Amino acid sequence: MISLEKRTLGIAGLGLMGGALARALRGLPKPLFRILACDTDLAAAEGALREGIIDEAADPAAMLPRCDLIFLCLNPSTLIRFLEQWEASFKRAALLTDIAGIKGNICAAAERLLDRRPDLDFIPGHPMAGAEGGGFANSGLVNFAGKNYILTPLKRNREENLSFLKTLIRSLGFGRITETSPEDHDGKIAFTSQLCHVIAASLIDCETDREITRYGGGSFEDLTRIAMLNASMWTELFLENSGRLLSRISRFEKSLEELKTLIAEGKEEALRERLAAIRDRRSGM
Amino acid sequence: MISLEKRTLGIAGLGLMGGALARALRGLPKPLFRILACDTDLAAAEGALREGIIDEAADPAAMLPRCDLIFLCLNPSTLIRFLEQWEASFKRAALLTDIAGIKGNICAAAERLLDRRPDLDFIPGHPMAGAEGGGFANSGLVNFAGKNYILTPLKRNREENLSFLKTLIRSLGFGRITETSPEDHDGKIAFTSQLCHVIAASLIDCETDREITRYGGGSFEDLTRIAMLNASMWTELFLENSGRLLSRISRFEKSLEELKTLIAEGKEEALRERLAAIRDRRSGM
Repeated sequence: MISLEKRTLGIAGLGLMGGALARALRGLPKPLFRILACDTDLAAAEGALREGIIDEAADPAAMLPRCDLIFLCLNPSTLIRFLEQWEASFKRAALLTDIAGIKGNICAAAERLLDRRPDLDFIPGHPMAGAEGGGFANSGLVNFAGKNYILTPLKRNREENLSFLKTLIRSLGFGRITETSPEDHDGKIAFTSQLCHVIAASLIDCETDREITRYGGGSFEDLTRIAMLNASMWTELFLENSGRLLSRISRFEKSLEELKTLIAEGKEEALRERLAAIRDRRSGM
Repeated sequence: MISLEKRTLGIAGLGLMGGALARALRGLPKPLFRILACDTDLAAAEGALREGIIDEAADPAAMLPRCDLIFLCLNPSTLIRFLEQWEASFKRAALLTDIAGIKGNICAAAERLLDRRPDLDFIPGHPMAGAEGGGFANSGLVNFAGKNYILTPLKRNREENLSFLKTLIRSLGFGRITETSPEDHDGKIAFTSQLCHVIAASLIDCETDREITRYGGGSFEDLTRIAMLNASMWTELFLENSGRLLSRISRFEKSLEELKTLIAEGKEEALRERLAAIRDRRSGM
């Protein structure tokens, strides 16, 4: 696939990211393509139709045989079941890509699909963008501008498809595309994304006072905004990547314990030096 | 004091907050008052003069006898020494206020000053705003609009001074003023501010890869921005409030440990329920 012109795009799952992708795709200049979408949530599909960001809502059986390019915007476990269930329905030579926040199991599922349907191509991806709340209702809040997009290409991905997808991703506003292995992705994301969500959740878990925001100066708000999460999706992401995540939590706990000890022992100079080194490291990132 | 008209304002300390206050005060309509400032950092004072946000840079001995209202914008320990050193120099019946992020020791120092100078008034305060980096150079980045401002008034504060200061704070753009005790302030701030800074610092402390931002989707950036902190000031704040802060760290560690256990044991349903409850609590805050 080398161009969207006169093609049919499919979006499976009109949640936060599916909705955001539909909006961004619809906003492309020269949109000489159709966008179909399926979602078990009829309200999301109807909303997307009403807003004009998709051309047609259909069930997978009707949609998949017509789509040249499909964005699979489903929770990981749902995505894996979806691939198995609809394996025979994808259009010949279609290009598939997904948006899941974990890549090891998705890449394995993609390989299994391509073993049985070698005419297809499937490039696993992870757009690093989000918004508070989740779901189609909040999808208009997602901003792709300048954001990171990770791709974990398979060895058998076709060069022209990879090149096409990267051009499309850039045209949606993303600022940086990184290609890496699923193992590297899942290791890094355990830190930058999953650990951060566990920390935000723990911060809210340990405070019951709803009036506490009277005492917020921005840092509490910044650190806990992502605690307004999609509980089902994050449960899947945490459990599917639990080994790496638990190791990251432990490393964080060790650092926290060390700072705690410096504070408890009143080690003024050592604490100041440690904080200055941390400030410098973060500034350099 | 009931009006700024024809008054002289003093700012002791042109760091991040002193500089930000000078800018906001200078921007008030009808600025029929003079702003003097002192800082041991001559570059900050010269910068403020050059930008026209202060009328005069002076040393405390020359400045304090002329000021009707003084914003003390110094680190806590420096502030306490400053009050002792310049006790005799404050203008008769002057109104003092500070911006320190901890209030117990500052309120005690204010009481000592007022014991010896009962003509003065001192209303301790904490504007809950900041910016990355710190120092006068970053003071233009501080935004007061809609932010919280905590006051911990002393019993002997004069009603007209408190009322005047609150009007002035609102005119600077702050959205909500909360009056409370120094104990309550220091307890709440240990959570909303200090714990958040300890967590952000620990997150950076446990990761050495400077390229990790390629894998950031916003949450890592949001959770660690405040790790670019003023090491001296935060060392003072952490150590001065260490009892409350350590207790807050422990409560956070307990919540983190509980989430970690749910993840380690693969308790899918319990984890999903816990995350959903956390999302709802944060949404209600």
